[in-house]
Amino acid sequence: MNTLPETVLISEVGPRDGLQSVKATMPTADKFKWIDALVAAGLREIEVCSFVPAKLLPQMADAAEVVRHALQYPGVTVMALVPNLRGAEGALKSGVHKLTIPCSASEAHSLANVRKSRQDMVEEVRAIVRLRDEIAPDVKIEAGLSTAFGCTIQGIVTDDDVVWMAEQVVAAGVDEAGLSDTTGMANPAQVRRLFNKVRAAIGNKTGAAHMHNTRGLGLANCLAAYDVGVRTFDASLGGLGGCPYAPGASGNVVTEDLVFMFEAMGIRTGVDIDKLMAARDPLQAGLPGEPIYGMTPLAGLPKGWK
Amino acid sequence: MNTLPETVLISEVGPRDGLQSVKATMPTADKFKWIDALVAAGLREIEVCSFVPAKLLPQMADAAEVVRHALQYPGVTVMALVPNLRGAEGALKSGVHKLTIPCSASEAHSLANVRKSRQDMVEEVRAIVRLRDEIAPDVKIEAGLSTAFGCTIQGIVTDDDVVWMAEQVVAAGVDEAGLSDTTGMANPAQVRRLFNKVRAAIGNKTGAAHMHNTRGLGLANCLAAYDVGVRTFDASLGGLGGCPYAPGASGNVVTEDLVFMFEAMGIRTGVDIDKLMAARDPLQAGLPGEPIYGMTPLAGLPKGWK
Repeated sequence: MNTLPETVLISEVGPRDGLQSVKATMPTADKFKWIDALVAAGLREIEVCSFVPAKLLPQMADAAEVVRHALQYPGVTVMALVPNLRGAEGALKSGVHKLTIPCSASEAHSLANVRKSRQDMVEEVRAIVRLRDEIAPDVKIEAGLSTAFGCTIQGIVTDDDVVWMAEQVVAAGVDEAGLSDTTGMANPAQVRRLFNKVRAAIGNKTGAAHMHNTRGLGLANCLAAYDVGVRTFDASLGGLGGCPYAPGASGNVVTEDLVFMFEAMGIRTGVDIDKLMAARDPLQAGLPGEPIYGMTPLAGLPKGWK
Repeated sequence: MNTLPETVLISEVGPRDGLQSVKATMPTADKFKWIDALVAAGLREIEVCSFVPAKLLPQMADAAEVVRHALQYPGVTVMALVPNLRGAEGALKSGVHKLTIPCSASEAHSLANVRKSRQDMVEEVRAIVRLRDEIAPDVKIEAGLSTAFGCTIQGIVTDDDVVWMAEQVVAAGVDEAGLSDTTGMANPAQVRRLFNKVRAAIGNKTGAAHMHNTRGLGLANCLAAYDVGVRTFDASLGGLGGCPYAPGASGNVVTEDLVFMFEAMGIRTGVDIDKLMAARDPLQAGLPGEPIYGMTPLAGLPKGWK
């Protein structure tokens, strides 16, 4: 067992991953209020939008505006997802601090999701890195290796495939590569094994753990990732994002529960849990009727909580 | 990290812990069908009832009958909860294989729950052990140290209090002492630390981890317990038992999710997940309208599952 360190970074993905996954479009003014509340709670990295064609994802049509709003907060890393060079151009011009590019570890998923082979996607990443180097060299680029723990199309994704993809995107110039359990298929033994292998291959360019709670293992998988040295964790307020099956079967790890787990363990997140709970209000106000999740919000903080 | 071992024991507590926590009383014939399905799924230890006055808990009025039914299955350890000597007498006469005695680690909870100080409860345990030695010496006795990770009445429960109680019940003659997160306040760091301390004090008399999912940490805490050598885990089919706050805020760890986690990790539980899922039908048939939980049942098994 590792000695407990002091801090982890919780990367809030709700305003992008969450809002992109629901049918309704949150009005821009409500997004602002929600982001304000997330910042007030102490979150220091927020994925605020994706740069994609508005006709495909009307929920993200105000991406540049949302970035501009978030940029007012010093100390907050403003991230945007970009699936391709065109999206990256928009994001870089908007002034974001960090791009995240989803790159499937599964060939079948890559072809289905972005209509590109993995090799072609690596070339796209290389082009994005080139553009970044030219017009916004301070911006960081993360590749999020989706379907790293299994794929709903091809089933098993081998460790070798994941390590290969991590090496390719690093060779293409990304600053870090994280592992995403897009499909909720990860288990703690696999999380430990795979993060260790990826770290052996790309060292300190190993990025965040993006776990899903599809089968209830989200926090156990985050714990497993923590055990092998991961210190950045994606999560979504209220578990918004990916509710593919039924009420209660959330996709994303719930930020409130994840922060509670780490804080209870004595690991600092920098997040004020009470204010984090309060950030559910603007989320719900902006998406009336949309179900949100979280066990800690239902149960409340335990007696004796400092 | 430990080398992965081959097996864990899942101790199903639903027919006792679950049924005792709901308002409705499951008819005896339905209990039989549910237990049949649990056995068919491969569960090898089942807490089938508690021996308590029927006027207090009418749900358990058929305890002796339920034990008799469960005893027909070779290879299944039939457990009953007993809060005191009188209950133990009934249970031992019924022919159970194992008794579990709830013993609060928190003095405040002990006084509130069984109207006995912890010291008086230890004397009760001693009397139960004496009775067992006289009339049913092959029966095993487990003390379940409740509120081991925190108490809703007194707040913090110190590690020393838990270790003291573990030593006391072992000195009183129990075969094992497990740790129960009665209040859903445990975190993985605490689970590892406390199980290590208890093991240092009572060695291989250290028993099961009984974790709750109140704040979503149930599986993470089971993983943490596993990491420090715990090999028996209590869980409840459909998370039945303790739904103290709101829909979705289940008490007990969901057997289906726990089995999925271990099996996905390559750790054998002896449980057939498909048959385990099927055991939800007789549970629901016997408790119409009662909500049950579980993420894996909602999501289904992943593609490529062996």
